[in-house]
Amino acid sequence: MSAEMTQIFSEFIGTAILILLGDGVCAAVNLNKSKAQNSGWIVIAFGWALAVTIAVFVAGLNGPAHLNPAVTIAMAMNGSLSPSLVLPFIIAQVLGGIVGAILVWLAYLPHWDVTTDKGAILGTFATGPAIRHYPANFISEVIGTFVLVTGLLAIGANKFAEGSNVFAVGGLILAIGLSLGGTTGYAINPARDLGPRIAHFILPMKNKGDSDWAYSWIPVIAPIVGGGLAVALFTLIK
Amino acid sequence: MSAEMTQIFSEFIGTAILILLGDGVCAAVNLNKSKAQNSGWIVIAFGWALAVTIAVFVAGLNGPAHLNPAVTIAMAMNGSLSPSLVLPFIIAQVLGGIVGAILVWLAYLPHWDVTTDKGAILGTFATGPAIRHYPANFISEVIGTFVLVTGLLAIGANKFAEGSNVFAVGGLILAIGLSLGGTTGYAINPARDLGPRIAHFILPMKNKGDSDWAYSWIPVIAPIVGGGLAVALFTLIK
Amino acid sequence: MSAEMTQIFSEFIGTAILILLGDGVCAAVNLNKSKAQNSGWIVIAFGWALAVTIAVFVAGLNGPAHLNPAVTIAMAMNGSLSPSLVLPFIIAQVLGGIVGAILVWLAYLPHWDVTTDKGAILGTFATGPAIRHYPANFISEVIGTFVLVTGLLAIGANKFAEGSNVFAVGGLILAIGLSLGGTTGYAINPARDLGPRIAHFILPMKNKGDSDWAYSWIPVIAPIVGGGLAVALFTLIK
Amino acid sequence: MSAEMTQIFSEFIGTAILILLGDGVCAAVNLNKSKAQNSGWIVIAFGWALAVTIAVFVAGLNGPAHLNPAVTIAMAMNGSLSPSLVLPFIIAQVLGGIVGAILVWLAYLPHWDVTTDKGAILGTFATGPAIRHYPANFISEVIGTFVLVTGLLAIGANKFAEGSNVFAVGGLILAIGLSLGGTTGYAINPARDLGPRIAHFILPMKNKGDSDWAYSWIPVIAPIVGGGLAVALFTLIK
Repeated sequence: MSAEMTQIFSEFIGTAILILLGDGVCAAVNLNKSKAQNSGWIVIAFGWALAVTIAVFVAGLNGPAHLNPAVTIAMAMNGSLSPSLVLPFIIAQVLGGIVGAILVWLAYLPHWDVTTDKGAILGTFATGPAIRHYPANFISEVIGTFVLVTGLLAIGANKFAEGSNVFAVGGLILAIGLSLGGTTGYAINPARDLGPRIAHFILPMKNKGDSDWAYSWIPVIAPIVGGGLAVALFTLIK
Repeated sequence: MSAEMTQIFSEFIGTAILILLGDGVCAAVNLNKSKAQNSGWIVIAFGWALAVTIAVFVAGLNGPAHLNPAVTIAMAMNGSLSPSLVLPFIIAQVLGGIVGAILVWLAYLPHWDVTTDKGAILGTFATGPAIRHYPANFISEVIGTFVLVTGLLAIGANKFAEGSNVFAVGGLILAIGLSLGGTTGYAINPARDLGPRIAHFILPMKNKGDSDWAYSWIPVIAPIVGGGLAVALFTLIK
Repeated sequence: MSAEMTQIFSEFIGTAILILLGDGVCAAVNLNKSKAQNSGWIVIAFGWALAVTIAVFVAGLNGPAHLNPAVTIAMAMNGSLSPSLVLPFIIAQVLGGIVGAILVWLAYLPHWDVTTDKGAILGTFATGPAIRHYPANFISEVIGTFVLVTGLLAIGANKFAEGSNVFAVGGLILAIGLSLGGTTGYAINPARDLGPRIAHFILPMKNKGDSDWAYSWIPVIAPIVGGGLAVALFTLIK
Repeated sequence: MSAEMTQIFSEFIGTAILILLGDGVCAAVNLNKSKAQNSGWIVIAFGWALAVTIAVFVAGLNGPAHLNPAVTIAMAMNGSLSPSLVLPFIIAQVLGGIVGAILVWLAYLPHWDVTTDKGAILGTFATGPAIRHYPANFISEVIGTFVLVTGLLAIGANKFAEGSNVFAVGGLILAIGLSLGGTTGYAINPARDLGPRIAHFILPMKNKGDSDWAYSWIPVIAPIVGGGLAVALFTLIK
């Protein structure tokens, strides 16, 4: 493979692992009969933080490990990524999100039939608002992704040891999840939401409801706005 | 901007992020309909620890990342900060605290109206005593900040790798929160309490009560005393 | 001792510590009168993550610290381990698993008699399915071990500082436990399951039931398959 | 001060901080009206792990930061500490334990009167068995301290970066707490138990009961035995 193809493929694999582990922790907490059912927000927040950490270790072997279209667009704005890679990265990330969600479906195969709560099933795949209020939900996702991209830029600019940076990124995801996740479930990543939502739409599950496409644009658009604002502000403080 | 203005601006931005994430985790745990409601002390303690960690990453790009008037005063006593920066730093920190609290209000916008517990709303912004007993509450905050500043001085003096130091500071906040936060909610930082209390006083929220100004002097004065004691003792053990 | 004997002995000691701490946390959460009884999935997941971290510190002094036949076989496939060490390593690991489980039995000695739930006792030693469905359980363990070995290879290939790598491995175990453990309790290691199951079979405990040998082949075979798949895929992305 | 006096004084200060934070988390979880009351084993285990981490940062500035007579004796056996320092270190550690416990009493001052459970009050200071069975309790503490000292020797021998080692020690305490603490509350340190027990005996508290001196010898003697066994075994695997 060419160096660019390897990078694109790494985004695909990395995002698949991110969603396998991230949606996996949602399955662990949400689905009936799971050994981790109802184990709470601390499990969700650590699960997603480690999901990103491990995915960055894997994807970071051959590329920048964005794993997130909002980060990819922000890095292109910032001049850290060639513009010609933006679209291929995004496609790879969304496809990775779909594949990761299918792997979660496979890993928790007997649990879907014993789970009757449609919201718990959809919530294992995609995010949704605690209180449906589109403008407020949009703002929540903008703020969350603003913190994400500001944090990533600050961690990157500190030029700490590569190893510590991965842990710092995990800490950043943990921080956002614990503090800003209560409102919309912190998508802060279009591929994290859209990919699994497509998987939810496609996959056969006895008790699934609709895929809430009415909400789906918020976790796609708002993170891109939040990431852009972060890049803009960061030029002021750097 | 001059180097000094950049440092002052970094204190402002860093404290804003600290309070956005720190008061954010209080919102996540306290407010009705939040996905993290009632998720417990471990979420609060990790949330604040990571809030400081991420804020230090951001503010640390251009300055010492005190984010806390008690630390600023201690460092000036210690000779690590020019005295002429003490007042500008403190003003920037309090303003950052106000802005961070406003961002929490924005991020959790639809949750204020559905939360009817006045104490839960105030507790999302400012600290308060588990048992109201001003002398004892004062002592608790002195001890907490004494540990904070002693720990910061010890971490700094170890001259470990810069990256690890940030994590050690996060661990220090986690330690204080878990162990000493049960009494007064560990302000250990005048700007962390005063800034958000001002925001609580100003912001429109249907169910808010008074801002408990009677208590407000304790998390301002006691941390400064605790930090001063730490500097004094540290000269003995260094 | 020869260098090879030292390595084999390290696998034995390391796996014994892994199981002492890993099955120890299961005892802490499962057994009646334990101070940590019912403390939840976050305790289980952190307990096993730290169990691996500490065991790797000990076994890593004199060898590769696989502590897991699936890892040993994957590393032999990968060319990182001499094939002549595969069988001795596996024997040492299973024996270590038995000894570690006996130490847990000893550490929690008065708790077995006051625990009457046969499932809680077996679950302290060996893994079992949340929903018994052998093909699905097999797939769950394949996916879990696939992530384990992919993660180990990625962490190893990043060539971060040796110290950070140990923590990254701990993070990897934490990730798998939180996200993929809800189905079968994440054996992801034949020695982790078979060794303690043998100990359960042998040890005298008033209220113990049978050792569920019908399930026992899954946590032995599936992890080997998952590890092999990871090695195969990793040649594509490295 | 002479170099030796500084080391001894560091043991005193470090153990005081260890117990302030460690018994502090017990107070946070045990005492009535505490904001962290009943927040569970994960809070206890993280609280003690961070207590050790921060205490090592402070005491490590000027000395080996044993903070534990069992470690001091093991290190003397091991040849890592001059025998003439053993007794002064132990005295400093026990005195530090008393002072730390008094600071906890001070920090949580109004909470003692509103707590009526005598066991909760004693359990905030000293350890006690989940099931009283002296031989089994003794074995539990031997095993816990065996893992502690084996882990410390392994972490030390790996010669990782000094900064990471502190975190590894924190991870070791976390591991022991989560996995082996369910039986006797993991004293694994004579000064951690004896110092605070003396403080409990002396301090005025309306609802306190007796100090359970019948049990007090176990957390003093058993850790010394466990540490000695670890040193003996470690010569085999190093």
